[in-house]
Amino acid sequence: MKKKLIVQKLGGSSLSSIKKIKRAAQKIKKEIISGNNVVVVVSALGKTTDYLQSLINKTDVNADLKEIDTILSSGEQVSSALMALFLNKIGINSRSFLGWQIPIITNKSYGRARILDINATFLKQIIKDQVTPIIAGFQGISEELRITTIGRGGSDTTAVAIAAKLNADRCEIFTDVDGVFTTDPRWIKKAKKINHLTYDEMLEMASVGAQVLEPRSVSLAKQNNVSLIVRSSFKNIKGTSISKTRKIIEKRNVSGIVFSKNDSKITLLGVPDKPGVAAKIFGSLASQDINVDMIVQNISADGKFSDLTFTVLENDFFKAQKSINKIKKKVGIRNILPVSKVAKISIVGIGMRSNAGIAKEMFRALAKEKINIDLISTSEIKISVLISRKHILKAVNALHKAFKL
Amino acid sequence: MKKKLIVQKLGGSSLSSIKKIKRAAQKIKKEIISGNNVVVVVSALGKTTDYLQSLINKTDVNADLKEIDTILSSGEQVSSALMALFLNKIGINSRSFLGWQIPIITNKSYGRARILDINATFLKQIIKDQVTPIIAGFQGISEELRITTIGRGGSDTTAVAIAAKLNADRCEIFTDVDGVFTTDPRWIKKAKKINHLTYDEMLEMASVGAQVLEPRSVSLAKQNNVSLIVRSSFKNIKGTSISKTRKIIEKRNVSGIVFSKNDSKITLLGVPDKPGVAAKIFGSLASQDINVDMIVQNISADGKFSDLTFTVLENDFFKAQKSINKIKKKVGIRNILPVSKVAKISIVGIGMRSNAGIAKEMFRALAKEKINIDLISTSEIKISVLISRKHILKAVNALHKAFKL
Repeated sequence: MKKKLIVQKLGGSSLSSIKKIKRAAQKIKKEIISGNNVVVVVSALGKTTDYLQSLINKTDVNADLKEIDTILSSGEQVSSALMALFLNKIGINSRSFLGWQIPIITNKSYGRARILDINATFLKQIIKDQVTPIIAGFQGISEELRITTIGRGGSDTTAVAIAAKLNADRCEIFTDVDGVFTTDPRWIKKAKKINHLTYDEMLEMASVGAQVLEPRSVSLAKQNNVSLIVRSSFKNIKGTSISKTRKIIEKRNVSGIVFSKNDSKITLLGVPDKPGVAAKIFGSLASQDINVDMIVQNISADGKFSDLTFTVLENDFFKAQKSINKIKKKVGIRNILPVSKVAKISIVGIGMRSNAGIAKEMFRALAKEKINIDLISTSEIKISVLISRKHILKAVNALHKAFKL
Repeated sequence: MKKKLIVQKLGGSSLSSIKKIKRAAQKIKKEIISGNNVVVVVSALGKTTDYLQSLINKTDVNADLKEIDTILSSGEQVSSALMALFLNKIGINSRSFLGWQIPIITNKSYGRARILDINATFLKQIIKDQVTPIIAGFQGISEELRITTIGRGGSDTTAVAIAAKLNADRCEIFTDVDGVFTTDPRWIKKAKKINHLTYDEMLEMASVGAQVLEPRSVSLAKQNNVSLIVRSSFKNIKGTSISKTRKIIEKRNVSGIVFSKNDSKITLLGVPDKPGVAAKIFGSLASQDINVDMIVQNISADGKFSDLTFTVLENDFFKAQKSINKIKKKVGIRNILPVSKVAKISIVGIGMRSNAGIAKEMFRALAKEKINIDLISTSEIKISVLISRKHILKAVNALHKAFKL
């Protein structure tokens, strides 16, 4: 039987204590003993990156990104070498590889670099030599021979990129949860682990707050058809596998419910209905680094003015109002209606594509609980609604039950 | 006037808080504004290396040195990039350089590598381009493209090696003391800062505990005739300069008094006076990783047996006794006489070479205080005596006064 090649990625929460590192090393050993080749990708230990970022924050907001990347990349440098030490100790021949040692070549967008190439020939030779490579995630090297980082959560992307480049049989993302859940298990007791998801479903789950997998890495996996598995570092259970299609046996309409609890909503009443107005409004917000999530605008009834609503994170609520107030006159906005403490709930599932009744079912479930819907926004495999934050748990529980999750 | 080139080395104690890093950055800026070119070499921030070592200690004593070096070198990676950020913030165009980026090429003795070569052409171009290089001390790269470290306190050696290679006008070692003192100012109130020392004097001062400069770096400076200055990171005072010869105006016999307080003494009574015995005794201690400091053996009176005394650190006292007991019978040692709580005092100065009266003066000063001398050992520019530890302060004060320091 041909040996399988498995990429195993260990996140910071799986490496937050010596005890956990030892346990992770044992997991890797077990896979190797079972007869497979393993390539390990590690994040920094525990909260290391936060600590390094706090040092950087004391310098300057406009600091040199090249120096920042040099600092941030040191976390994975430590964890990769430390993991190699622990593995060697338990009899697994391994060695650490930093981004520049492989190399993992990226472009020059320091702080959010894109991986351009990985020297797979070199890694394949290492594996052939019976050495288990422990690769520092999150980092690479640019053509000017400086260390780059590929953005927060970048180790997921490193792992998937390596799995793609090496044609690995699968890429396992070890984390501190059992897998991807139908909804957030910290809030909803009845949340259940999902066994299979498609890339598209995972993308919708991740981007609205599932926080298990970096969305970029899911996109990359989709692009290269890398078989992904999200699983617990601590328990010996199956996890969630993510691939191109779901098995027919799991046919269901809605796969999960995701929600965010930090939103606030700003409605602009009487916005002139002419070209360039939206660009001005969102340009003003973007220039203040305010991220806008949902945007809903109805067609205007009179052809002259319409209402426009968008949501921002609670943190940016006042900044966003200030920003809009500044351009209010120039743009000709009649009135601003800010509402904080709203929440977004989304149901996600590829089943929606072919089932028009899902939206109706969602709205009916919420209505039954007397929960008012403020905004609605839909995509091919997701329906999101905005509601008052105080109803959030009631709403998620109702939907969880309605869609039999 | 030609610009001078100055290498400035900042130790961990000069970088142990954001406030101190800012102050160090201002010092560098001042030197640059005064019209000189500066190359900065940094240690890790504060106690970083101790923290990293504590992680490593949790793995294995026989761990892979290559991985350990990868871990340990991360401290200077962070501090060099952080210093570059702070300097850029205050208008000094600078960038960090890791060992592999210059490169600083070392041999493959991981953990205590020797610097083989430094790409000076590259560094000179950087300086010509008006960029201040901030070099990560303590690290290099081996021919197999792995990170090496050059031993504890190695940043001093990095600084001197770079000063030598660049033909720098001087190499300034910034530290948390005002310079090198006539004796330890923490214990002896009357200790005074020394203005000038020769390399040889500094070597004797350092190796017996002055702890200001890594002895290896002093040897390297001597070899390449690098003008060294030890000075305070915090106060604006002159420090101690170290060079080949002392100025005539400073003619004095004794430059300083150094002492250690962690010694214990083991005397072997009746050791057979035949070839190979000493080798067996110290081989046995070395195999237990016990460092021996002073060794004194008199010629035997009867040509058959002699007495041998050596000192070890208090920590190794019992281990050393055990080790000797094991070989006692085989070697034919008559008796073992262990004495703990002794102390070593050394007077250091190139003046001794040509002045036979120094030793007499030392012994007379101690006798006047009724301090018994257990052991005596001398070198060309140093006389060391072993005394009971309880007399240590009295002895140092007496000698400090006797030699008018």
